[in-house]
Amino acid sequence: MQVYKFPYYFLGSADTKGVEEKSFVLRGDILWSAEPRRITTLENAYLVCLEGRSEGVFKELPREYAQLPLREHRGKLIIPGLTDLHVHAPQFAFRALGMDKPLLAWLEEKTFPEEGRYHDLAYAREAYTRFVEEVKRGPNTRLCVLATIHGPGSLLLMELLEESGLVSLVGKLSMDRNCPPYLMEENSEGALREWLDAYTQRRAQGGLANTGAILSPRFFPSCSEGSLKALAEIQREEGLPLQSHLSESRDEITWVRELCPQSPHYAGAYEDMGLLKGPTIMAHCVWPEEKEMDLLAQRGVHIAHCPQANMNLASGIAPVRQLLERGIPLGLGSDVAAGTETSIFRAMTDAIQVSKLRSLSFPQERPLSLEEAFYLGTAGGASFFNKLGTMGGRDFAPQKAGSFEQGWDLDALIIDDSSLVGGTTLPLLERLERVIYLSDDRHITEKYVRGKSILP
Amino acid sequence: MQVYKFPYYFLGSADTKGVEEKSFVLRGDILWSAEPRRITTLENAYLVCLEGRSEGVFKELPREYAQLPLREHRGKLIIPGLTDLHVHAPQFAFRALGMDKPLLAWLEEKTFPEEGRYHDLAYAREAYTRFVEEVKRGPNTRLCVLATIHGPGSLLLMELLEESGLVSLVGKLSMDRNCPPYLMEENSEGALREWLDAYTQRRAQGGLANTGAILSPRFFPSCSEGSLKALAEIQREEGLPLQSHLSESRDEITWVRELCPQSPHYAGAYEDMGLLKGPTIMAHCVWPEEKEMDLLAQRGVHIAHCPQANMNLASGIAPVRQLLERGIPLGLGSDVAAGTETSIFRAMTDAIQVSKLRSLSFPQERPLSLEEAFYLGTAGGASFFNKLGTMGGRDFAPQKAGSFEQGWDLDALIIDDSSLVGGTTLPLLERLERVIYLSDDRHITEKYVRGKSILP
Repeated sequence: MQVYKFPYYFLGSADTKGVEEKSFVLRGDILWSAEPRRITTLENAYLVCLEGRSEGVFKELPREYAQLPLREHRGKLIIPGLTDLHVHAPQFAFRALGMDKPLLAWLEEKTFPEEGRYHDLAYAREAYTRFVEEVKRGPNTRLCVLATIHGPGSLLLMELLEESGLVSLVGKLSMDRNCPPYLMEENSEGALREWLDAYTQRRAQGGLANTGAILSPRFFPSCSEGSLKALAEIQREEGLPLQSHLSESRDEITWVRELCPQSPHYAGAYEDMGLLKGPTIMAHCVWPEEKEMDLLAQRGVHIAHCPQANMNLASGIAPVRQLLERGIPLGLGSDVAAGTETSIFRAMTDAIQVSKLRSLSFPQERPLSLEEAFYLGTAGGASFFNKLGTMGGRDFAPQKAGSFEQGWDLDALIIDDSSLVGGTTLPLLERLERVIYLSDDRHITEKYVRGKSILP
Repeated sequence: MQVYKFPYYFLGSADTKGVEEKSFVLRGDILWSAEPRRITTLENAYLVCLEGRSEGVFKELPREYAQLPLREHRGKLIIPGLTDLHVHAPQFAFRALGMDKPLLAWLEEKTFPEEGRYHDLAYAREAYTRFVEEVKRGPNTRLCVLATIHGPGSLLLMELLEESGLVSLVGKLSMDRNCPPYLMEENSEGALREWLDAYTQRRAQGGLANTGAILSPRFFPSCSEGSLKALAEIQREEGLPLQSHLSESRDEITWVRELCPQSPHYAGAYEDMGLLKGPTIMAHCVWPEEKEMDLLAQRGVHIAHCPQANMNLASGIAPVRQLLERGIPLGLGSDVAAGTETSIFRAMTDAIQVSKLRSLSFPQERPLSLEEAFYLGTAGGASFFNKLGTMGGRDFAPQKAGSFEQGWDLDALIIDDSSLVGGTTLPLLERLERVIYLSDDRHITEKYVRGKSILP
C-alpha cells in the first residue's frame, strides 16, 4: 500500500519544546501487539522513549539508555494507547439518550437539532470541552472525529483537542442535500475551503501540531454529486484524508441505489464520484457485497467497525471476519452517540461479543479473539495514521502508533489493575483481558501521547 | 398465581432493631416502575419510609409524616434497588478471564477448578468477601446466588451477604453426575439436608434475617434422577424455592433429550422429576419450544434473562418478547462469570441491545424498551421475592420490592448524576436512561435495603 503524500496540511510542525521530557524509560509489565493474532508480553521490563518515540521494549535496560530518567511503574501494566477511528464529537452531548428511537426519529429528534447548535461558538466550546475532557481521562490516545458543518466550531474543536495533548484528525462535515434546512450548506465547497484556509493559517502560526484536517462528507445521501466531486478535487489538490459512512443499514443501501442507480454498489457510488483515492475511513460496512469488498481491499479503505452502533441502531453485525480475511484494514470506533461510551476497551469487548452472535448464523465466520480485538483497537486502528506520510516536521514522520515497535510514536497507558486482580496472581495476558472487560478511567494512572504525559 | 407457603425457612425473623432509623423521608427526583411499560417520575418529591417499608411517593409531604427525619437529596435521583436473579458467587474470582474459550473448555479450565476451592473456608471467605463487597458498592440490592456444592462455604457466603445488608437467596449446589470427581457428591441429598439443618440452626439463633436458602440443582445433566427426585421431596417437605439452568445452548438441549428421552422437552425433564412445583427460577431459556413455554407459563416459572451470557458463551439470544407475551415472569441476571459485570444496569442495556439484534432476524419480536428493561431489573426480578409468602416475621411479609408501592420493602438507590448530565437540564426519564447506560458505583451515593442504609 502506498504512502499518501501530504504537501502541507496535517500534523508535523517541528515540536521542539519538551524534547527532554519526552526522553525517558518506563518500567512495568508491558504488553503490545504488532500483528493481529499475537500479544507480546514482558514482565518487569523497560520501554524506552526517545524524543517521543519508542526505542523498543527490553528485558534488561541497554547501557546507552542508562542516563535517561527512569519512571517506575513496577506492578502496573503498560500498553499502547487506543485509537477511536470513528466518533461524532457533537453527539457526545446527547449520548445515551433516546436509544430506543428508530434511526430516523433519533436523527431528527436528537442528532440534527443538537448538531444545529454548533454555529454558536460559546455553546460549542462548552460541549466540545466536555467531550475532550472525557476522552482525555479515558484510554484513547488518537481519534478520527466528525464535527458539524460549522467551520469555526470545527476549528475550535481542533484547538481543544490540540490543547488536550491527544492526536486527532477532525472533519468539518459536508452536507448539502436530504437534511434539515439549518444543516444544509448552500455552498458546501466554499465552506470547506474556508475552514481549510483557517486551519492552514493556524498551522502557519505554529498551532495544531497534533491535529489534522480530514474531509468528511456526512454520507452519500446527504451530499450532492456536485459537492462530492468538488471534495474529490480538493482531495487531489490538498492531499487530505477522508472519512464517511458506508453500508450501515439496509434502508440506507436501498436509498443510495436509488440516488446512484448507475453505481454497482454503495462503495462504488463513492468511487464513481472520484473518492476513495486517498487514505479513507469508512464507518460500519455492515452489509457489504462481494464486489464491494473487493473494491475496498483494492483501495485500502480502512473500515471503522462500530459494534455498539451495530446493536443500538439495530443495523446488523458487520462481517468483520470476512473483512479481515480479505485484508481490508480495520479499526474500532466508538461511534458516539450511536455508541454510548467513548472507551475503545468497550468497543473491543463489544466487537468480540457481537462476533460471537454473528458466528451463530455464519458458523464459518470465526468470532474475534481477544488478541484480534486488542490489535484492532491499538495498532490496527492507528495504522490509518501511518498512511498520512511525511508532512513538514521530520520529527513527526511516520506517525506510526498503537504498538511499541522501534521508531513508532510512543502512545502508552499506565494501568493500575490491582483492584481488578484482587489478591491473586494472574498471567499478564489475563490481567490485560480483565482490564479490557472491566477497567474504567480510575485504573489509568498515566497516559502518554507522543511521549508526553497528558494527564493532570 | 398462588403465594407459596413457607413453613419456617427463609427470611423473616422479626428484626426489631433499628426501627427508628428505618423510618424517614427521602426527598429527591423519584422514579419507579410498577408495570412493564411505564416509569412513573416525580420531580422534587417525597418518598416515605416507615419501619423499612414504603408508604408511597408524594408531591407534597402529608402532615402525618412531618415528624419523620427528612433526608435531603434534592437534585439527585431516587430509584428502586435492582435485583440480580442469577449470579454465581464463586465465579466472581475469575470473571472476565478466558472469555474466548468455548463453553466446555471454559467450564473445565476455569469454572470447575475454581469451584473446587470452596471446600477451603479460608479461601472461600476471601473470595466471597470480594464478591459481596463488589455487589454492595453497586446498584443491586437483592440477588439469587448460586454457591458451590460445599455446605460450610455456602453457609459462610450467607453470613457474609447477611452482614452486607443485601437481601439474598443462596443455594448450595447439588451435583452428582457428569462433573469432575472433586465436585461430584456421593450423597447429594444428605449434603443438602446437612446444609439446610445448619442454616435452620443459624436462623433459630436469630441470624440470617435477610438471607434465605434456595434449592440449586446445577442443571439437569449434572444431577442424577435420584437426586432430583429427592430435591422435589425436600422441596415439598420444606417449602423452599428452587433455581437452576434451562435451555441455554443447543448442545445442552440435545444432551438432556438423550438423558431423558421420555420427557417432551428440557423443562419437561425437570417437571417429570417432580420439580417446578414451588417458586422456581430458571436461567437463560434461550431455545424454548412452544409447549415448553406453555408449561413455564402454567407453572409461573421465573426466567432469569442473562444477556451477557447469551453473547459471551455464544448461546444465542433468548426470545424475551415471546416469554413476556406469554406472561412468563421475567427478571435479569448478571450470570457472573458468563457475564463479566455484576451490575444489573449493564444487564438492562445488554438486554435492550441483544433484543434489537434478535429483531433483525425475527421482526415480529419487538425489541425491549427502556421502560421494560428497567421494570425487569427492578420490580420484575424482585417479584420472585413476592412469591415466598409469609414466613414467621410479620414485619417481613410480603417482601415485595423493586418499586415504591405502599407496603413494599424500601430498597432504594440515591444517584448523583450531575457528572453525567453535565451542565444541561434533562427530563427525569432521560436522566434515568443515561444512568442506566453510563453510571458506575461512583454515582451511587446511598443505598437502602429494607429501609436500612448499607453503604459505609
